Amino acid sequence: MTGKLIVFEGVEGCGKTTQIVRSHQWLQTTFPQAKVVVTREPGDTHLGLELRQILLAKTTEHPISELAELLLYAADRAQHVAQVLKPNLADNAIILCDRYTDSTIAYQGYGRGLERKIIDQLNLLATGGLESDLTLWLDVDVEISLLRIKSRGASDRIEQANLAFHQRVQAGYTQLAAANPQRIERIDASLSEVAVAAQIQNVLLKYFDN
Amino acid sequence: MTGKLIVFEGVEGCGKTTQIVRSHQWLQTTFPQAKVVVTREPGDTHLGLELRQILLAKTTEHPISELAELLLYAADRAQHVAQVLKPNLADNAIILCDRYTDSTIAYQGYGRGLERKIIDQLNLLATGGLESDLTLWLDVDVEISLLRIKSRGASDRIEQANLAFHQRVQAGYTQLAAANPQRIERIDASLSEVAVAAQIQNVLLKYFDN
Repeated sequence: MTGKLIVFEGVEGCGKTTQIVRSHQWLQTTFPQAKVVVTREPGDTHLGLELRQILLAKTTEHPISELAELLLYAADRAQHVAQVLKPNLADNAIILCDRYTDSTIAYQGYGRGLERKIIDQLNLLATGGLESDLTLWLDVDVEISLLRIKSRGASDRIEQANLAFHQRVQAGYTQLAAANPQRIERIDASLSEVAVAAQIQNVLLKYFDN
Repeated sequence: MTGKLIVFEGVEGCGKTTQIVRSHQWLQTTFPQAKVVVTREPGDTHLGLELRQILLAKTTEHPISELAELLLYAADRAQHVAQVLKPNLADNAIILCDRYTDSTIAYQGYGRGLERKIIDQLNLLATGGLESDLTLWLDVDVEISLLRIKSRGASDRIEQANLAFHQRVQAGYTQLAAANPQRIERIDASLSEVAVAAQIQNVLLKYFDN
């Protein structure tokens, strides 16, 4: 089996983290010979952890400009691609990655209204052209996802942004999925954990059968 | 007097910090009605201080990719332009800034060999096109500047890089000065502190007389 980059995308509260854990376990059982790696953006390098703290910290006192934020995500991605994604793909691993380039388009582009051309330039620069092999978009209504977040009791800077922002992000994912049907698979994430996991396993089985 | 962005550039140990302090005092005495602001890159915002710590920390254990480093400098610059430079220029301040876009070209471009096109793109993005009104390049032989650094007893990650690297940086400044004579003034920084300060005062007097 050659290395594959499988990305999980969606709004906060869509269930990415839970489903990545389930997919990891399922892949290890189903393909016991495969190396399966779980990672995320921002954060899964030493630099990324430092940047994650900066990006997700509550910063009403010290706001970060939208452009600086975009460049920090790009820096995290450049480090992540060089240190984690490329070496693991070269080692033929199946990588399950929590967020990648589509998050930047959805959040900074559709959500914050930054210019798409600039985002595409920075994504291309930071990834060196490395795209996901398969992206699982966990699609759930923003009203449901925000309720899920509230029930967790904790929220970070991004989760505190308003409903309209999250709806723009959601619209971004919808348009990205429509524009990239060969790469992005929509998963109905409004269902139960088990039902969502089953959909994902179906998609992964089909993907690895081809 | 309208706002002016005056940048101090040069290799480590060229005397920028000392000369900025002297220029600050001299400008306040000479133009007592002017608002004079001293700032630096990376670092003179809350975000910048956090990034400065990351960028200058010794990181043999956790190296930062060259591209990630470039993007972190761009993020710091975007925040610095938005939060410090533009508001102070709008307030008609004379800004004395320790390093700006030419540092990125000299260090990341000439020093590390990153593609000039990418650096120019990121500089343009981070600054929104804001260029220095006047750049004072403190020109000193690398052998002298490295001796000065050693005599301080302390050195950070960048200062530990090797002689050949600093010579490439120095060559970068030389070529930048040749290509931008209308903006970059060469200062002979091999002389005594007082003699260097006198040269700078001469350039500033001519500049503000026009």
